[in-house]
Amino acid sequence: MEVTNKYIAIRSHIDGAPRESDFELKTEALSVSNEPGCNDVVVKTIYVSIDPYQINRMKKFSSSQKTSTFAVAITPGQAIDAFGVGRVVASGHPGFEKDDLVAGLISWGEYSIVRGGNMLNKLDSMGFPLSYHVGILGFSGLTAYGGFFHICNPKKGEKVFVSAASGSVGNLVGQYAKLFGCYVVGCAGSQKKVELLKEKLGFDDAFNYKEETDLKSTLKRYFPEGIDIYFDNVGAEMLEAAVANMNIYGRVAVCGVISEYTDTKKRAAPDMVDVVYKRIKIHGFLAGDLMNLYADFFSTTTDYLRTGKIQVIEDISHGLENVPSAFIGLFCGDNVGKKIVKVTDDYN
Amino acid sequence: MEVTNKYIAIRSHIDGAPRESDFELKTEALSVSNEPGCNDVVVKTIYVSIDPYQINRMKKFSSSQKTSTFAVAITPGQAIDAFGVGRVVASGHPGFEKDDLVAGLISWGEYSIVRGGNMLNKLDSMGFPLSYHVGILGFSGLTAYGGFFHICNPKKGEKVFVSAASGSVGNLVGQYAKLFGCYVVGCAGSQKKVELLKEKLGFDDAFNYKEETDLKSTLKRYFPEGIDIYFDNVGAEMLEAAVANMNIYGRVAVCGVISEYTDTKKRAAPDMVDVVYKRIKIHGFLAGDLMNLYADFFSTTTDYLRTGKIQVIEDISHGLENVPSAFIGLFCGDNVGKKIVKVTDDYN
Ligand SMILES: NC(=O)c1ccc[n+]([C@@H]2O[C@H](COP(=O)([O-])OP(=O)(O)OC[C@H]3O[C@@H](n4cnc5c(N)ncnc54)[C@H](OP(=O)(O)O)[C@@H]3O)[C@@H](O)[C@H]2O)c1
Ligand SMILES: NC(=O)c1ccc[n+]([C@@H]2O[C@H](COP(=O)([O-])OP(=O)(O)OC[C@H]3O[C@@H](n4cnc5c(N)ncnc54)[C@H](OP(=O)(O)O)[C@@H]3O)[C@@H](O)[C@H]2O)c1
Repeated sequence: MEVTNKYIAIRSHIDGAPRESDFELKTEALSVSNEPGCNDVVVKTIYVSIDPYQINRMKKFSSSQKTSTFAVAITPGQAIDAFGVGRVVASGHPGFEKDDLVAGLISWGEYSIVRGGNMLNKLDSMGFPLSYHVGILGFSGLTAYGGFFHICNPKKGEKVFVSAASGSVGNLVGQYAKLFGCYVVGCAGSQKKVELLKEKLGFDDAFNYKEETDLKSTLKRYFPEGIDIYFDNVGAEMLEAAVANMNIYGRVAVCGVISEYTDTKKRAAPDMVDVVYKRIKIHGFLAGDLMNLYADFFSTTTDYLRTGKIQVIEDISHGLENVPSAFIGLFCGDNVGKKIVKVTDDYN
Repeated sequence: MEVTNKYIAIRSHIDGAPRESDFELKTEALSVSNEPGCNDVVVKTIYVSIDPYQINRMKKFSSSQKTSTFAVAITPGQAIDAFGVGRVVASGHPGFEKDDLVAGLISWGEYSIVRGGNMLNKLDSMGFPLSYHVGILGFSGLTAYGGFFHICNPKKGEKVFVSAASGSVGNLVGQYAKLFGCYVVGCAGSQKKVELLKEKLGFDDAFNYKEETDLKSTLKRYFPEGIDIYFDNVGAEMLEAAVANMNIYGRVAVCGVISEYTDTKKRAAPDMVDVVYKRIKIHGFLAGDLMNLYADFFSTTTDYLRTGKIQVIEDISHGLENVPSAFIGLFCGDNVGKKIVKVTDDYN
C-alpha cells in the first residue's frame, strides 16, 4: 500500500529564532506494509503538539541533543517526530489495529510510520476531547504535575512564582498549585494573558513582565514575604530575580529556559551567595523521567476536569501548513495555553 | 573579677578583598562574673578558626547576613565571634566549670564571654590534638562529610570534582570521596598543592587552575567520561565549566563561592539548558543544617583517624595579632589545609 505523505521539515539547522523560511512542506510517497510481523504501525495524524524544545533539536549543536531519546538532533529534510494523537490506518503490529485511536510519538506530518509501535499507545479518550490528550492529559500536564509536586516538593501555604504562566505547562502549574493550597503569582507577556491568569485561572496575582524594567524589584513587590518555589519556564533575568527574592530552603524547578533557546548570549547568573546561604535547590528535570507519576497524575487531573476544578486552555491552529507559524509563535508569545495543530479535519 | 582582653575587630565594613588596614587589635577591660545564676561562661581562647564566610559578615550588606545565626553582620569595632577551642576561666553556668575544655562559638580574641553557654560544648579531646577539634573534627569536617554524603548523594565509582581541594573543606571532601570509592580530581592554586593532593591525599588526579586558560576544556581532559558530582568551593567560571562537563543526573553541592565573595562582579552563569536536559541539581547548603549527621560524622572520622586512613592538613599561625593576615591569606591561597590561629601558648 502506498500513501502520499506531507510533512514539515527544516531546510537547514536553526541557531537563532526560527523564521518561516527555515521550514518547508515536503511531499513523499510512503510505502507502508501491514504484513503481520513487520511491526510497523501507520498513523494518520489528528492533533500534533507544538513544543519549544524542538528548537534545541533543530540547532547544529546543543548539549541537549545527547541527553535523552526525545531530544536527539533533527536532520534537515527529514520528518520531525512530535507528540500527537492519531488513528491507525494500517498495522503489522499485533498490538494495534486499523482505526485504533493512538497517542504517542508521531510527527509533524499527515502520516507517520511508527516502527515497532515504539512510544505509541492505544488511546481511550474517556469522553474527553482528543486534543486534551495532547495537552493537559499529555506531556504538558505530566510536566506541570510532576514538576510541581515531585521536583518542587510544595507545602500548603507556600508562595509560588511561575513564569510563562499562561503557556501550556505554566497555566497548569499555577492551577495545580492553587488547588493544592499555595499562594500563586504568574507572569506573562501581555495584559490579556495577565487577565486570563487572574480572572479565569484563579492565580492570586499576575503581571506582564514586558512592562517591568527591574524584575528584582517587581518580584519584591509581588512577594513581600519572599518566594518559596519558582517554577522556571524562561531562565535568564527571570531566574536571577527569583533567586534574589527567594526564602531560605527555596526551590527552583528548571522546567525550561525558553528565553535562552534562541539567544545563546542570554544566560542566568543567579547569585550563588544566595544559593548557599538560603540553601536553595535549583533542579533541572525532564517529564520523561516522571512516568512513574503518570497514573497518579492522570487520575487526579481527570477528576479535576470532571468536577470543573481545572480549566483547559488550548490554542489550536488548523492545517499542517500552519505548523511552522504555530511553532515560531511560541517564541513570540503568540500562543495562549497549549499550542496544538489539527492536521486533519476527518475527526472531531 | 576583671580581665584585660585583646581582640581583633574590623575598622569599618569591607566590601572588596580584605587588607591589613581593615583590621585593628583592640584592648578592653572585661568585667566578668562567676556568680552562680549569671550563666556566663568566660573562655580563654586556645585555637580559633579562620573561615572565608566571615568576609560576608564584614560587608556593609549581604543577603547572607539574614539567613542564619552564624552569618549575621559584624559591627565595626566589636569582637568577631568565631568557632574555636578554649578553656573556661570562670563560669556562672551550672554546665561549665573552671578549667573545662570547651569547643564552640568564641571569638577572635583572647577571652570571650559566652552568655548562657550558648553554642558552647564541653570538649573531650579523645586523645586527639586540640586543633583537630577546630578543623577535621569541627565544622570543616562536618561540612565536608555532610556536604558530600548528604547533599551529593554519591554512588561508588562516580566521578567527583572538588575545587579549593587543598583547603580545609576541600581536602576532606576528596579524602572521604576516595575512601567511599569514587574517582576524585581536585584543583588548587599552586603546583605544591597539586602534589600534596596527588601524593599525600590520594586524589586520582589534580591540576593547578591558575595555569589553565579554558576551564571547560581542562575539565574535559580530566573527566573524559564526565563529572557526576561537583563539590563547589569557589563558584564563577569553575562552576560554569563543571556544569558544562557534567553527566546526566549530575549534582553540584554549592558549599561556598569564595571567588565571588570579594568581587561582586564575579558570577557563575552555568548553562541552564544543560541543567534542564541533564537533570542537574545545584544545591546550596550550610553545615549548620546537618547537625543530625554529627554523631555519624564524628564516629566515622575518628575511626579513620585512628586507623590512619585520613590525613590531617592544618596550617597554624601563632598569636592573635596574626589573625588578620591569616584571614586575608585565605583569599590569596596562602593556606594549605585548615587555617587556624593558636592564640595562647599556655596549652599544647
Ligand atoms: N522539562 C520538561 O520535560 C519540559 C516539558 C515541556 C515543556 N518544557 C519547557 O517548559 C517551557 C514552557 O513550555 P510550554 O510547552 O508550556 O510552552 P508555552 O509556555 O505554551 O509557550 C511558550 C511561551 O513562552 C513565553 N516566552 C517565549 N519567549 C519568551 C522570552 N524570551 N521570555 C519570556 N517568555 C517567553 C511566551 O509567553 P509570554 O507571552 O508569557 O512571553 C510563550 O507563549 C519551555 O521552556 C519548555 O521547553 C519542559
Ligand atoms: N556551606 C557551609 O556550611 C560551609 C562551611 C565551611 C566552608 N564553606 C565554604 O567552603 C569554601 C572553602 O572553605 P574552607 O574553610 O575550606 O577554606 P579553604 O579552602 O581552607 O581556604 C580558602 C581557599 O580557597 C582558595 N581560593 C581563594 N580565592 C580563590 C579564588 N578567587 N578562586 C579559586 N580559589 C580560591 C584558596 O586555595 P587555592 O590555592 O586553591 O586558590 C584558599 O586556600 C569557602 O567557599 C567557604 O565559604 C562553607
